[in-house]
Amino acid sequence: MELNGKSNGKAHNKQLILNAFVMNTPGHLSPGLWKHPRNHTEQYKKLGFWTDLAQLLDKAGFHAMFIADTLGPYDVYKGPHNFEPGLAAGAQFPVNDPLYLVPAMAAVTKSLIFGVTASTTYDKPYALARRFSTVDHLSDGRVAWNIVTSYLESAARNHGLETQIEHDFRYVLAHEYMDVLYKLWESSWRDDAVVADRKAGTYATAGRVRNIEHKGKYFTVPGAHICEPSPQRTPLLFQAGTSGAGRSFGAKHAEAIFVGGQTPEKVRASVDSIRQLARDEFGRDPYHVKIIAGISLIVAETDEAAQEKQQDLLKYGDREGALTLFGGWTGVDLAQYTDDEDFQFSDKPGIRSVVNRWAETVPGTENLKWNKGRIVDFLLLGGMMPKIVGGPQKIADELERWAEVADVDGFNLSHITNPGSFEDIIEFVIPELRKRGLFRTKVPEGITAREQVFGQPGLLSDHYGSKFRWAAGEDAPRYLADDLEPAPKRRKVNGN
Amino acid sequence: MELNGKSNGKAHNKQLILNAFVMNTPGHLSPGLWKHPRNHTEQYKKLGFWTDLAQLLDKAGFHAMFIADTLGPYDVYKGPHNFEPGLAAGAQFPVNDPLYLVPAMAAVTKSLIFGVTASTTYDKPYALARRFSTVDHLSDGRVAWNIVTSYLESAARNHGLETQIEHDFRYVLAHEYMDVLYKLWESSWRDDAVVADRKAGTYATAGRVRNIEHKGKYFTVPGAHICEPSPQRTPLLFQAGTSGAGRSFGAKHAEAIFVGGQTPEKVRASVDSIRQLARDEFGRDPYHVKIIAGISLIVAETDEAAQEKQQDLLKYGDREGALTLFGGWTGVDLAQYTDDEDFQFSDKPGIRSVVNRWAETVPGTENLKWNKGRIVDFLLLGGMMPKIVGGPQKIADELERWAEVADVDGFNLSHITNPGSFEDIIEFVIPELRKRGLFRTKVPEGITAREQVFGQPGLLSDHYGSKFRWAAGEDAPRYLADDLEPAPKRRKVNGN
Repeated sequence: MELNGKSNGKAHNKQLILNAFVMNTPGHLSPGLWKHPRNHTEQYKKLGFWTDLAQLLDKAGFHAMFIADTLGPYDVYKGPHNFEPGLAAGAQFPVNDPLYLVPAMAAVTKSLIFGVTASTTYDKPYALARRFSTVDHLSDGRVAWNIVTSYLESAARNHGLETQIEHDFRYVLAHEYMDVLYKLWESSWRDDAVVADRKAGTYATAGRVRNIEHKGKYFTVPGAHICEPSPQRTPLLFQAGTSGAGRSFGAKHAEAIFVGGQTPEKVRASVDSIRQLARDEFGRDPYHVKIIAGISLIVAETDEAAQEKQQDLLKYGDREGALTLFGGWTGVDLAQYTDDEDFQFSDKPGIRSVVNRWAETVPGTENLKWNKGRIVDFLLLGGMMPKIVGGPQKIADELERWAEVADVDGFNLSHITNPGSFEDIIEFVIPELRKRGLFRTKVPEGITAREQVFGQPGLLSDHYGSKFRWAAGEDAPRYLADDLEPAPKRRKVNGN
Repeated sequence: MELNGKSNGKAHNKQLILNAFVMNTPGHLSPGLWKHPRNHTEQYKKLGFWTDLAQLLDKAGFHAMFIADTLGPYDVYKGPHNFEPGLAAGAQFPVNDPLYLVPAMAAVTKSLIFGVTASTTYDKPYALARRFSTVDHLSDGRVAWNIVTSYLESAARNHGLETQIEHDFRYVLAHEYMDVLYKLWESSWRDDAVVADRKAGTYATAGRVRNIEHKGKYFTVPGAHICEPSPQRTPLLFQAGTSGAGRSFGAKHAEAIFVGGQTPEKVRASVDSIRQLARDEFGRDPYHVKIIAGISLIVAETDEAAQEKQQDLLKYGDREGALTLFGGWTGVDLAQYTDDEDFQFSDKPGIRSVVNRWAETVPGTENLKWNKGRIVDFLLLGGMMPKIVGGPQKIADELERWAEVADVDGFNLSHITNPGSFEDIIEFVIPELRKRGLFRTKVPEGITAREQVFGQPGLLSDHYGSKFRWAAGEDAPRYLADDLEPAPKRRKVNGN
């Protein structure tokens, strides 16, 4: 394991994973900042915008570009079903499909991993399996999948549902969905099925490809995977659920989990809980789940210069855009409240707890009202992410403290402007982290995403999905041979 | 209209459209030819294979790379549900998703159009609209969509259906599906909705984006399109249906239609029928539907050299692969027949008519049996496509004759090996066509697909989809203003 030294639970002296957090939209987490002179996210429609960014990150040694996604507009604020307040800020709307960016970005980079958000709720598993297999082939194994189940009401309605599928039931479906995917990705083609032997005239060998015969409670997929095994077979699996159902899903399936939270002390509780679940419930080495914290940095050569930069950036914030994002994320329409309402004492427990978490982390504001205006101030730069403003020393100190106290393996770094934020991190933060031995100096080239993170292209042997693997030379995939779950006998394909 | 001079029904002296017909699989239409020394289709998994091909075609002036697709394996021969006989030949299985190839190919080319097959049957319209809008943005408007409804039983079962949706009903669904797409692509965002005005702080202008409120018989899509208008809005629309329902669908929606048939005389009947339908039923200029014939060429410097090349290629054919493709295309399992059965006199009218069409076009074989062996011989190079073997003069004569007699606008040229076939066409055929004024010498750069074919980026005014357009400065999309169909009133978005 390249990144963590050894799996002994010690968080110290490990090298950090750094991801760039982006979205295929003009306005990601800092509404209104698209109009800052340094920023060009309005070019998100152009492929060159993305290949330039990919090359910048690749050269700097970033581990991954992680691309968020939504499948419907945020339409709660001044709603219902009103997307208009966010239009001026391009607040995560419009948003293009992220997976189409990956092959071209992979072609111009050597190491960068592309983590792409896609939902289990609206794509059929047979189709989604093909999409990721295709991109895993085209990227030489550098794609990762951020598994989401989609929480937006607007997405549900536009995809033909009357309303959303209930939260926990989405995860019930998602568990079976993953079984279908593992069967397609891991068990349908034997590792050595494709021989492409010109002399023998054999592209793929009969007897080494099987129909998966999946007949579950919610999905029926009888056939073989339509794609031959890709470099990773199963793409590296990311996840971000924080609910009970989401956390259990992540502890079972995810190889990297994104966590949110304002302080490393608070985040530590989530991290411990995830690692414990992974170990106790799913028999995994708890350090085979990489934990990545979301964070928003404003950096410059000195602490003072960073503060000035923050003041400059704030001038471009779009308050309606912030309220639009808040409405989408929380389901609460702040237009329904007066400007004076103090949400630290709100009768809506959801908002109250969110706001109290924020309040305790902004020094000197304990006695101030957390009204609409303060909420917007808080969200303008980096959304709900914890924020660190400072020069190289301060930033590196804080990231080091986070890694130790929260026991996280790395960070999803959001941008406030793009270009801008990542260039600053490359100029001011990465050299300092390297000086401290906290960031890799040598970046391995030409290997898959999973090899970079876990040292091998396929799922680790303690991952649930690995039991589906049909390895070279074996008569049947493991899960059938070991009879680990009730499964139909391997069916004779010829003349059945 | 660049290509056709004028729309007067005269087919003479027009310049031809030439497309390269390919598929994201080791074995497209010539089973077994993947193992020919010149061929490298086994590299289909690598992006470089595709960007190289795109550059070759672009430089040579080809109009489009047209990518076929299937959503399940061919599993009729020696079946049912048996994909094994085609594995050695890689006979259209495995097959990766074609749309992920486009952005990277567009990035390294200047003019080439990318026509991609995608089905209306398994993707939700809201999701498919987003996929094509994304790729239309990333390719600067050079994507075309080949609309199919998916005919394979294996695809239906793997996408969660018990069996296929009945053929004509798939087209009933597809018509409403297209209405949803036109509303999303053409009517949801006004042409001038996105202003990206940094000074005013307006990315998109409120009041110029609307929820489509589609509530039809089969689809309900209330929301706004999640993507801003792409260069073409609606991608250039291709189609290939030949049934009654398919032909009517094409005459209404398609801007280019692919036709099959062994002789130009026979094809002429289809062409006339399509053009007449387009004019009489849908009020279109009949030459606003470009008709493209599929054809398979074997070319060399002389007729004799081409014959020799054919004999060499035949040696690599995979007969089991041919029978696999035949089973998939026709639904008939030839394993159930003796080697002697003469299908010219079959009691299955479907095969009998197919075979008789072939028989009358292979001179000197009128009195020979069309048994299994001869069917396979016929299919090995180029599948069911009509075949022309010869030197530059003969090929150009034949293409010219086809264009005149069949009144087609161009050709989908299949490959037998790749690399190989397209290089030969570029070396031997294109110079001769140019000498005769039948192929463009100047290729326009940096314009959209539709501009190349019809002189403007948006749908032509006589196309059904154009009535959905929300043009700059207009209060509402045309179809609402003109009340061309029963539609809900434009809903007030704010505070509704």
